[in-house]
Amino acid sequence: MPDPSLLESFPTPTDSPFVIEHVAEEFSSVCPVTGHPDFGSITIRFEPRPNGAGGTCVELKSLKLYLQSFRNEGIYYEAVTNRIRDDLDALMNPNWLLVRSDWRGRGGIRSTIRATSGTVPDIWQG
Amino acid sequence: MPDPSLLESFPTPTDSPFVIEHVAEEFSSVCPVTGHPDFGSITIRFEPRPNGAGGTCVELKSLKLYLQSFRNEGIYYEAVTNRIRDDLDALMNPNWLLVRSDWRGRGGIRSTIRATSGTVPDIWQG
Amino acid sequence: MPDPSLLESFPTPTDSPFVIEHVAEEFSSVCPVTGHPDFGSITIRFEPRPNGAGGTCVELKSLKLYLQSFRNEGIYYEAVTNRIRDDLDALMNPNWLLVRSDWRGRGGIRSTIRATSGTVPDIWQG
Amino acid sequence: MPDPSLLESFPTPTDSPFVIEHVAEEFSSVCPVTGHPDFGSITIRFEPRPNGAGGTCVELKSLKLYLQSFRNEGIYYEAVTNRIRDDLDALMNPNWLLVRSDWRGRGGIRSTIRATSGTVPDIWQG
Amino acid sequence: MPDPSLLESFPTPTDSPFVIEHVAEEFSSVCPVTGHPDFGSITIRFEPRPNGAGGTCVELKSLKLYLQSFRNEGIYYEAVTNRIRDDLDALMNPNWLLVRSDWRGRGGIRSTIRATSGTVPDIWQG
Amino acid sequence: MPDPSLLESFPTPTDSPFVIEHVAEEFSSVCPVTGHPDFGSITIRFEPRPNGAGGTCVELKSLKLYLQSFRNEGIYYEAVTNRIRDDLDALMNPNWLLVRSDWRGRGGIRSTIRATSGTVPDIWQG
Amino acid sequence: MPDPSLLESFPTPTDSPFVIEHVAEEFSSVCPVTGHPDFGSITIRFEPRPNGAGGTCVELKSLKLYLQSFRNEGIYYEAVTNRIRDDLDALMNPNWLLVRSDWRGRGGIRSTIRATSGTVPDIWQG
Amino acid sequence: MPDPSLLESFPTPTDSPFVIEHVAEEFSSVCPVTGHPDFGSITIRFEPRPNGAGGTCVELKSLKLYLQSFRNEGIYYEAVTNRIRDDLDALMNPNWLLVRSDWRGRGGIRSTIRATSGTVPDIWQG
Amino acid sequence: MPDPSLLESFPTPTDSPFVIEHVAEEFSSVCPVTGHPDFGSITIRFEPRPNGAGGTCVELKSLKLYLQSFRNEGIYYEAVTNRIRDDLDALMNPNWLLVRSDWRGRGGIRSTIRATSGTVPDIWQG
Amino acid sequence: MPDPSLLESFPTPTDSPFVIEHVAEEFSSVCPVTGHPDFGSITIRFEPRPNGAGGTCVELKSLKLYLQSFRNEGIYYEAVTNRIRDDLDALMNPNWLLVRSDWRGRGGIRSTIRATSGTVPDIWQG
Repeated sequence: MPDPSLLESFPTPTDSPFVIEHVAEEFSSVCPVTGHPDFGSITIRFEPRPNGAGGTCVELKSLKLYLQSFRNEGIYYEAVTNRIRDDLDALMNPNWLLVRSDWRGRGGIRSTIRATSGTVPDIWQG
Repeated sequence: MPDPSLLESFPTPTDSPFVIEHVAEEFSSVCPVTGHPDFGSITIRFEPRPNGAGGTCVELKSLKLYLQSFRNEGIYYEAVTNRIRDDLDALMNPNWLLVRSDWRGRGGIRSTIRATSGTVPDIWQG
Repeated sequence: MPDPSLLESFPTPTDSPFVIEHVAEEFSSVCPVTGHPDFGSITIRFEPRPNGAGGTCVELKSLKLYLQSFRNEGIYYEAVTNRIRDDLDALMNPNWLLVRSDWRGRGGIRSTIRATSGTVPDIWQG
Repeated sequence: MPDPSLLESFPTPTDSPFVIEHVAEEFSSVCPVTGHPDFGSITIRFEPRPNGAGGTCVELKSLKLYLQSFRNEGIYYEAVTNRIRDDLDALMNPNWLLVRSDWRGRGGIRSTIRATSGTVPDIWQG
Repeated sequence: MPDPSLLESFPTPTDSPFVIEHVAEEFSSVCPVTGHPDFGSITIRFEPRPNGAGGTCVELKSLKLYLQSFRNEGIYYEAVTNRIRDDLDALMNPNWLLVRSDWRGRGGIRSTIRATSGTVPDIWQG
Repeated sequence: MPDPSLLESFPTPTDSPFVIEHVAEEFSSVCPVTGHPDFGSITIRFEPRPNGAGGTCVELKSLKLYLQSFRNEGIYYEAVTNRIRDDLDALMNPNWLLVRSDWRGRGGIRSTIRATSGTVPDIWQG
Repeated sequence: MPDPSLLESFPTPTDSPFVIEHVAEEFSSVCPVTGHPDFGSITIRFEPRPNGAGGTCVELKSLKLYLQSFRNEGIYYEAVTNRIRDDLDALMNPNWLLVRSDWRGRGGIRSTIRATSGTVPDIWQG
Repeated sequence: MPDPSLLESFPTPTDSPFVIEHVAEEFSSVCPVTGHPDFGSITIRFEPRPNGAGGTCVELKSLKLYLQSFRNEGIYYEAVTNRIRDDLDALMNPNWLLVRSDWRGRGGIRSTIRATSGTVPDIWQG
Repeated sequence: MPDPSLLESFPTPTDSPFVIEHVAEEFSSVCPVTGHPDFGSITIRFEPRPNGAGGTCVELKSLKLYLQSFRNEGIYYEAVTNRIRDDLDALMNPNWLLVRSDWRGRGGIRSTIRATSGTVPDIWQG
Repeated sequence: MPDPSLLESFPTPTDSPFVIEHVAEEFSSVCPVTGHPDFGSITIRFEPRPNGAGGTCVELKSLKLYLQSFRNEGIYYEAVTNRIRDDLDALMNPNWLLVRSDWRGRGGIRSTIRATSGTVPDIWQG
């Protein structure tokens, strides 16, 4: 089940502004109603706090293992998205954070959920 | 015929801001003039009211059944779009809502209709 | 329900060889098990008999009305494809005929069915 | 020749805000200099006046016939675009209107012309 | 109306084998039933007779003018395709010739017609 | 773990020749070495034996459940592909059968495996 | 060499606002260092001054000949872009003007240069 | 003007069979009638004679310079293609050779010319 | 290892505003943890200081050699991006600068990093 | 430098026929003339000998390390392709083998090289 203890971080390498985006195209969890697997991709976009403010960035391999921990969890689209937002927010406390999940669809309807923390600039909301 | 009683909702799972988008690519209704079937896709995008404000989100399977209820209805493009906007607005009373219908075209002209309620931020109007 | 009496034909306009292909991208019928609508496209490819042999070609508008007659029929993918093959074969008795149905998918699986009559050359089997 | 008397309209079906877009991909007129046919697509995007303000929307079939009336007219790209803008503005008097013509090109140069009336919001200018 | 006298040719420049393909993407004629314009593209593919056998190739500008001569002709898809095949065959008497017309569609059905003369090798039939 | 008892079939609906293709784009199993999930798509293409010869076709929903039974199995690409081929061959004994697995890749290398039974015609080997 | 005397213009046909874009995809000049040809496309986007203010628009065929006059000129990317901006600005004195050059690349690096005059609205800067 | 003396070759590095394809996407010559530049791409595909038979392969940089030597030559599509075929055939005397030119088009018609020497296997004729 | 001494610049050719973008699609460095090569593309976008203010622009060939100097360096995604931003900022001191790195992905996650200096206008942040 | 001792294999898991294809999209070596890095993708396609004939298949991770061993080798396109063919042929002695290298291009020319061993069926030569 989703295990935030898998997440690790490293200090932001600079005080200059930058934006990081990770796209995990091979995400899978399980529909809590039907028990069928859901497939989608998870986009994580954030501006870390600067090094001088004690900022950190999520480490890539730990992110991969964390996302794999949802594999056999029965969980709704909205809950996946909010859960990842909460866990990454707790880990990094970034200037702002957006988590977007794009689901391949069920019954002819495909869905996209976006959850945020902090004030995400308009140009990064997409 | 279009049956809003098919729509169900569930409480918004969080007070944090998020945006939901559902795309139903297999929508069909009937042209009221010619009787020929129309084909298109329906995009529904909204920001639910937060949990603490009694917000709700439309349930996905009920949305599918509701959209299928237009299948043999003779109804214009504009009326389909406004009708779905009205029915979802009544169901969820969201912070804002956009309904976009994209029609495959008739006589060499393809059309897109967008109807909204509340104040849709510019970045979500597309 | 499927109504082959809607189909009309016209005499092949020449004795020179030619191949005709019609693609109807807006086909819809109903799943006989779940009652949900199925969406797909129907490709019809054939070499008509020459004019001098009494050959005929299916008329385009009548083909459209015939395909619409499946709209509320509960019928399997395979049966749709074989039915159209049989009805067009009876109408035109062409040198050869291929009917291919491409379905948008259900439960994450999309399907393609090809039914033929006569000897379809390899280059036209795709 | 271009015949605005072919255009018909119907009352805007609602007072709620909405935006309509029609794309006619099969437009053709004639170059007034060379006499060769020009090919392009015409995009018409507008926000109708609300029903309560006597607003109207262009009817789709009449729009098709109106656009066909340019077929044998010798007319420049810019004049086509401005003419359609003027005729639709006179018909509907909408809140705002954008007409965009995209031409397939002549001599290795392809062109796009946009003409507007009223104050078109930035997000609809594309 | 279709005017084969517009077609001109030039002697095949070599005795070595080669294959020529011209694609005219901006073809338009008129539906003889509805009077509405039809839009499509015409592909012409052939192997000219060698220079030593008196072979000729169609001249490109004359081909353009010839295809434009169909612009206001009421004519069926099949007849357009066979007519072009016949006129080019009479002009060049090539080793083989394929004429393919791809139509943008009417009523949700798009069509492709292929007419040939001589023995077109399988690899050139597509 | 892979469970062929989930597979069900129905009698081939006709004696006329036809070819069936199912593409399951949301397949996932587990790498037996690293324990990380693998993601890919499975294409199943076959010509069923005719009805008169006791032919059967795999039922779509049972196929979906069968493919899901690989979800937590540690198994190599090649073994997945051969296993599905063997299980479907045992179920249907078709005229010919091709199973193709397309894997999203690991370490910058993406793989495709094709396993067959019977004599698959060249045009269906792709 | 680049010859602005080839450029011709015609009076803006209206006082209503509009935006013109020409894309010449077949531009070629010569690298002044290596002598190898450079290939790219030139996009010209502008809002002409209105007719009542004596505004003019560049004529399309003259633009084509002007762009061809760079063909054998040894000239840097930046200079091409600024030169075209200056010459068109002198010709039309438009409300605003953007010239963008997109180069196919050399040594694995492809470049885009944008030069402007006047105040180009944000939505037209892309 | 086209200068085959620019072409250089190197010995085929092996006796095992292999096929080489070079695609030069930035080819330009001049139309002998209008004087306007033509743009296209040149594909060269061949099987060199084996090393043991004294086979050679065209050197890549020399090929680039040779193709650039057509830049200001007034020459027809067919002649460009046959000329390159002849010059490369004389240089390498390969087992077989195909030269294909794809032209961006003039007056709405785009052309492809294929010239060959030796017996080009069907799978390499495309 | 990364060698900024390879970078050269030339004076900005004008005082008029313009924006330069270079995209190097063939960038490669080495993962400092696994020792495996990383592959990606580097986008560099900036507005140079005007000529009159002593502005300079990076020279294209020197940029290529500088980027190649990362080839065998063990370095993280974030460090690559910040390093290039710092080196180019020191070289040119531009009005603003954006460096974006797009990585092909490792373990199913692909990443994009954007680092900036100065005030990058919103329209150039993408 | 290229090190075939890195390659490992495992026994073919079955006696039934199958075809394996691996595509390594992130290949890089060095041009022996200029010293600049070359980038491309390597496709490896083969039919292993059956298990009963002592057949083996290349192991995926060892293949990755082997391909990485070319990273700093100065070597021509043709030599890369033939070398990989020879090394894999020596490792597996398969029924047939095709190695294709697709290079991103230098000086506007991109190349594809195909080397084979055994008799590769036509449908697998692409």
